[in-house]
Amino acid sequence: MAGTARPVVLDAMSGDHGPAETVPGALAARREHGVPVVLVGRADDLHRELRRHGGTGEVEVEHAGEVVPMAERGARAAARPESSLAVGCALARRRGAAFVSAGSTGAVVTCAVRAFGRREGVLRPALAVALPTPSGSTVLVDAGGTADPTPKMLRQFALLGAAYARNVLGVPDPSVGLLSIGAEPGKGNRLAREAAALLPGLPARFHGNVEGHDVLAGTVDVVVTDGFTGNVVLKNIEGCVRTVLGMVAEAGIAPPDRLAEVARLYTADTHGGAALLGLAGTVVVGHGSSRSTAIARACVVASELAAGGGPVPVDGRSSPRTAAPVGPVA
Amino acid sequence: MAGTARPVVLDAMSGDHGPAETVPGALAARREHGVPVVLVGRADDLHRELRRHGGTGEVEVEHAGEVVPMAERGARAAARPESSLAVGCALARRRGAAFVSAGSTGAVVTCAVRAFGRREGVLRPALAVALPTPSGSTVLVDAGGTADPTPKMLRQFALLGAAYARNVLGVPDPSVGLLSIGAEPGKGNRLAREAAALLPGLPARFHGNVEGHDVLAGTVDVVVTDGFTGNVVLKNIEGCVRTVLGMVAEAGIAPPDRLAEVARLYTADTHGGAALLGLAGTVVVGHGSSRSTAIARACVVASELAAGGGPVPVDGRSSPRTAAPVGPVA
Repeated sequence: MAGTARPVVLDAMSGDHGPAETVPGALAARREHGVPVVLVGRADDLHRELRRHGGTGEVEVEHAGEVVPMAERGARAAARPESSLAVGCALARRRGAAFVSAGSTGAVVTCAVRAFGRREGVLRPALAVALPTPSGSTVLVDAGGTADPTPKMLRQFALLGAAYARNVLGVPDPSVGLLSIGAEPGKGNRLAREAAALLPGLPARFHGNVEGHDVLAGTVDVVVTDGFTGNVVLKNIEGCVRTVLGMVAEAGIAPPDRLAEVARLYTADTHGGAALLGLAGTVVVGHGSSRSTAIARACVVASELAAGGGPVPVDGRSSPRTAAPVGPVA
Repeated sequence: MAGTARPVVLDAMSGDHGPAETVPGALAARREHGVPVVLVGRADDLHRELRRHGGTGEVEVEHAGEVVPMAERGARAAARPESSLAVGCALARRRGAAFVSAGSTGAVVTCAVRAFGRREGVLRPALAVALPTPSGSTVLVDAGGTADPTPKMLRQFALLGAAYARNVLGVPDPSVGLLSIGAEPGKGNRLAREAAALLPGLPARFHGNVEGHDVLAGTVDVVVTDGFTGNVVLKNIEGCVRTVLGMVAEAGIAPPDRLAEVARLYTADTHGGAALLGLAGTVVVGHGSSRSTAIARACVVASELAAGGGPVPVDGRSSPRTAAPVGPVA
């Protein structure tokens, strides 16, 4: 896709490792996938890293003097207009480019909502991650965008997730399950029970409740939950994969390098990060611990999502295969 | 422990498979572990199964004509006084015996609370499960007892979980982490943020927030969360272990029987079920899908917990090694 790829604006100060990983990640996106990247952050730091990787001139650099610490909460982060996060969001918006950050999810969501705005009718944005299952992928939504949603918001997350499954994964008529603690509609906490009453009316194929063991079983194409539970589940899967494959390696019953291939399916190196759905722009939130491979993958995913274009129908109307749910407004 | 083991009352109609699995499970508990079991349920069905396994006379049978369906919610289940669940709870209470059911968690919790009552000061019961980590075990609490707790209830769950880690797992000074979506105290949904403000004052070693990947990493001895998130996490681990080891088997890089040994660590065959903490009696809730091995294990765990005896200090005072948090009041 070299030459035709959409440009991506990268918050180069983000993540646990900052420019030491974002700069080589951006160079890999450019060199290996033809995705043009604009690095945003402290110009001195970025040019030094570019020199270190022999990449001066290969990607653009936009200066932003401040850095949002990983521990910063959303509202405080948004009050730093000179940060690489805020400057990056604004630049992406002006250029109609996709935006990638491996910063704190709360901070990225808050700043991205301010910069891009929500699509018409969207109450709150949600993060979507496609997780590998034995038969394909399941979209987990919300994986951490909105920690305390209302039942109505969950209903929209279901539609955003279904649009993602259709447009990004190519599933023609995705099934949607509500994550709860029992298969029956009466089971769950207050939020899940109230949402279970709203979802059967969705203009989407509603499967009913699903449980924790269904997330990776391929029971449904889309698993809908609140951003707290979704984020816990996403990270729980990461930890579980690591621990269980570690036990297999420890038992000496499989070669570690072959196990690493399976483990990689569940890391940001493969999925690249979470798409922030419901905004009038394309935003991908990378994992805080992303190394350069995961950063490169996030840039490629963001470029592909942006190339899809077109709005997400939160009223549930179907949209053509080429329309990505997080693409920029044309 | 044959001969000295505490008797266990088993809801023999419970679980997805009913007497076909509970009866051989009870016989295995008796024959292999010396745990005397009282089967509660439809006498005809139970005697027939006992005959089928050559076990007539080896375990007691108490008749109860009704069965609580797995889909039944707590309040409706409790309105069936002739059910094996209600009759079993009442019998266990009268005899000072431990109680085991693989029925619907909500139904078991509701009936057990009515029959045994809470310990003094306990606001709500919580389910605790000990999960294997690379370095030992981590107690997950609440794994599904109370779906919508208050921050004060979470504070008690932390103390109940710490008492469980001390008394059942033998950890002298257990560390406690609050499950959230960021390590910093300000991160989380409303409940987690409010609980994070209460927990540092605990008379227990509070580690701070932990995240989904910490649950199986051995980061802390006790992970505290609400019963909705905890139940989703518990079942998510089950599903994740199954999917990931299935991928390893599919890749042909390890023998399936050796992988099954690792998989079993995370099934009810090993942990036996969840202990319902905070009641004036010993109650173990088995997995609905339990086969006879898991039922037998649940009976053994219940017998051992009851043998510990002694109340849980919800004010956080330490208790002797022999005091189990779910033992009957002496």
